[in-house]
Amino acid sequence: MALSINLNADMGEGWGTYRIGDDAGILDVIKSASIACGFHAGDPVTMHDVVKMAKDKGVSIGVHPGFNDLWGFGRRAIMMKPQELEYMVAYQIGALQAMASYSSAKVTHLKPHGALNNMAAVDADYATAIGRAIKTVDSSIIYVALSGSEMEKASRKLGLKTALEGFCDRHYEDDGNLTPRKFADAMIKDADKAAKQVVDMVTTGEFLSRHGKPIKVKVDTLCLHGDEPTAVAFARKIRAALEGAGVKIVQIPEMKLS
Amino acid sequence: MALSINLNADMGEGWGTYRIGDDAGILDVIKSASIACGFHAGDPVTMHDVVKMAKDKGVSIGVHPGFNDLWGFGRRAIMMKPQELEYMVAYQIGALQAMASYSSAKVTHLKPHGALNNMAAVDADYATAIGRAIKTVDSSIIYVALSGSEMEKASRKLGLKTALEGFCDRHYEDDGNLTPRKFADAMIKDADKAAKQVVDMVTTGEFLSRHGKPIKVKVDTLCLHGDEPTAVAFARKIRAALEGAGVKIVQIPEMKLS
Amino acid sequence: MALSINLNADMGEGWGTYRIGDDAGILDVIKSASIACGFHAGDPVTMHDVVKMAKDKGVSIGVHPGFNDLWGFGRRAIMMKPQELEYMVAYQIGALQAMASYSSAKVTHLKPHGALNNMAAVDADYATAIGRAIKTVDSSIIYVALSGSEMEKASRKLGLKTALEGFCDRHYEDDGNLTPRKFADAMIKDADKAAKQVVDMVTTGEFLSRHGKPIKVKVDTLCLHGDEPTAVAFARKIRAALEGAGVKIVQIPEMKLS
Amino acid sequence: MALSINLNADMGEGWGTYRIGDDAGILDVIKSASIACGFHAGDPVTMHDVVKMAKDKGVSIGVHPGFNDLWGFGRRAIMMKPQELEYMVAYQIGALQAMASYSSAKVTHLKPHGALNNMAAVDADYATAIGRAIKTVDSSIIYVALSGSEMEKASRKLGLKTALEGFCDRHYEDDGNLTPRKFADAMIKDADKAAKQVVDMVTTGEFLSRHGKPIKVKVDTLCLHGDEPTAVAFARKIRAALEGAGVKIVQIPEMKLS
Repeated sequence: MALSINLNADMGEGWGTYRIGDDAGILDVIKSASIACGFHAGDPVTMHDVVKMAKDKGVSIGVHPGFNDLWGFGRRAIMMKPQELEYMVAYQIGALQAMASYSSAKVTHLKPHGALNNMAAVDADYATAIGRAIKTVDSSIIYVALSGSEMEKASRKLGLKTALEGFCDRHYEDDGNLTPRKFADAMIKDADKAAKQVVDMVTTGEFLSRHGKPIKVKVDTLCLHGDEPTAVAFARKIRAALEGAGVKIVQIPEMKLS
Repeated sequence: MALSINLNADMGEGWGTYRIGDDAGILDVIKSASIACGFHAGDPVTMHDVVKMAKDKGVSIGVHPGFNDLWGFGRRAIMMKPQELEYMVAYQIGALQAMASYSSAKVTHLKPHGALNNMAAVDADYATAIGRAIKTVDSSIIYVALSGSEMEKASRKLGLKTALEGFCDRHYEDDGNLTPRKFADAMIKDADKAAKQVVDMVTTGEFLSRHGKPIKVKVDTLCLHGDEPTAVAFARKIRAALEGAGVKIVQIPEMKLS
Repeated sequence: MALSINLNADMGEGWGTYRIGDDAGILDVIKSASIACGFHAGDPVTMHDVVKMAKDKGVSIGVHPGFNDLWGFGRRAIMMKPQELEYMVAYQIGALQAMASYSSAKVTHLKPHGALNNMAAVDADYATAIGRAIKTVDSSIIYVALSGSEMEKASRKLGLKTALEGFCDRHYEDDGNLTPRKFADAMIKDADKAAKQVVDMVTTGEFLSRHGKPIKVKVDTLCLHGDEPTAVAFARKIRAALEGAGVKIVQIPEMKLS
Repeated sequence: MALSINLNADMGEGWGTYRIGDDAGILDVIKSASIACGFHAGDPVTMHDVVKMAKDKGVSIGVHPGFNDLWGFGRRAIMMKPQELEYMVAYQIGALQAMASYSSAKVTHLKPHGALNNMAAVDADYATAIGRAIKTVDSSIIYVALSGSEMEKASRKLGLKTALEGFCDRHYEDDGNLTPRKFADAMIKDADKAAKQVVDMVTTGEFLSRHGKPIKVKVDTLCLHGDEPTAVAFARKIRAALEGAGVKIVQIPEMKLS
């Protein structure tokens, strides 16, 4: 039986006249796009346009909710009450669903952005608030959660479909957690090394930690970053390596989720 | 056969810690609420709370989209392209639909706010842009349009359900248009006079213009204002007069729309 | 020699059409106003109007900078870098100075708002960032700092003029710190008790902690809150009690600061 | 006596993580920078950084106020009352003055942005509102006004110093007005043609209209655009041509203004 994996990236993170990253280039490589919804980035026109582009290229779409901090691009934590956060996420889900109507596209996953993602990964209340927003607005939406995080736990507790996320360009520690960014070698900048890590991860379920210890991390979707100049070339190498190893690249809703 | 009419008002026009008007008091009198959606007013928490209150009181809900100008409360025109305006409205529809999920409420109408309403009343492109947003996101939503306006025309051309709006507290000219606000007697401040006007309007289809000439204006829904201190008392008088004349007060989707 | 003290309150915390508190009423009682500057509240028109009102009533004015979170009214911490925070505060100082030009008023103090104040009280980096903004934009501005806080330390280290702030309506612990709000009796709601506390504080330098232990806290300015319905009556009682005890109520820059 | 002229451009029009144009490249060519102040673009950090860069490169700085519409980048008119507009501009002047303190730079001119500039060029009330903001906050600031516009008139009436602006890359009509952008040849895209126009304009006071008729337009400062990829190369050509014709490129406050 053929193996399959999803490649995802954040998309539509411009604002009005501002643009970030090569959305069109990345959309040719990935199969699922997480789309900014107007709080940390992504005005209604940008949302409309990137949804259409994704649909045209056979890429599934998801909500990429963030904090209401355009200045900080959603990368600064705002210490809000879980309920405020929940309604803020719900609002953004609805906004994207509306924009998706223009392309008859279905919103099939949700992945939090920046500081919201970092906080929800370690805070059960925030992770649950996001899950509740999904459950209330559209319980068929798949909760994309860092493997092993509070988001994964909250998603399963709420009975939501869960896609476990891994990273192409990040090292992992011996315990299966991501190497914190404060370490110099947190990022894998060499595309070949990154490709080897993800091929091992997907085909054998086992790959080497930053310290060379074999570890297992289950993933359904691999995150690619779109905002660096080399992003498209990097993404293509990852995809080619996976396909070369017989792995099929599919949309998140096409994955067999556990 | 019993006559029926709808009473509507703008609701949820606070922002965070700010409040405007007595939403709870007005919701006891009206049957349809137009809810601010985060652009001119109405943060996600406020939206959630007013939807719930409306649902609990048997009041149907609608989108009340406005310009992205919190400072100006949506009362200042922003000269945007029709397409930008269309997507801005679509975004707000989706946002309210999401918040309505929390109360298992259905969004059944849309009425533009402030400057957006004024512009769409006289500008076919804007009126059509709003109609297209409705048609794309949820074509079952009823377009609330000032009787005789470009909105009414656009709504009918697009094949949307249309509710014609009249005003309780405004005088009309001989030609059936609203008396412009620049005239000293544009507003009807006396509740008894206002009540007489709407009872005539609803029961006989004919009432007197500002100059005393009998005119006919067809209306499905009557707008009440909620932000003045006397608003609730005024609204109650209007409702009592209508009910005293045998008119049933119903939700917008319960009206037989032409 | 006559004793003197300052009474201050936050002012101009409306936004566009939104209003909070009875600014005019409070301005009759206090002698220094901390004015919101457009980030957590306070649009340019509101700023202009409250500066003018303060000037007319003989009330000195200060900057009341807050986080860029209108939705949260500046009460939610945003985890920004100290340098971002510094420039954000500097920006708000300049904005108020411009609006003060309209009344030929001088901006003479600065007091952070809400979450910014809470964070700077305990975080040396944030306290210093605020101090640096003052020092760079106008080093004659008095830094209003909770007595004993990191703000006081930062202000003194930077060589800024410092006004120590006490509270009329808050209890203190045995160590001179404010009773945290999580305790039921953190607030003093009885105006007579509050008046006794501040009169003792100002005339003898000694008053009773929450647990009845005599403590000393040096204060130059006492904070009054303006947003509750009873605020003006409460403020008047405090002022009357102080004046009855022979204390003169003066502007912050009229205080002999240590 | 040597001729002199100023070259200006809009700068600091990024927002948070967003960037537009090659500020550093353009700052090497121009002598005066108009800096966005947080309403249409330009957060406090961006403002700080571009002021510093300008100061380091010997470029004078000015306020570039815009409408509060980050989504529309200040290019969409907001129909506000002249007084609201005046205070909005005053606020932005103060904000830039504060950020300029960090580089001990003086704010010496003001040029409205986008839709605000377009509206003030033809609307006496708006032009006057901007002038009043200058006069109140710092009457030494030079009002940069399109030659012959309502801004020029308002500036002179208010007794403000006025710098008349011309364009390097725009054609002029026979009556000395700019060719409206709706005409295909409104823009001069060929750098050599643009260079010839400005050299004629500056050295002889006379140049050819779009239709080849000799016209006279008095200018003190020439506007360069910074946001196109070819902007720096274009700007260099213009500057080289002027210098080749013996014209000295100076800061706006160094011009002898009429």
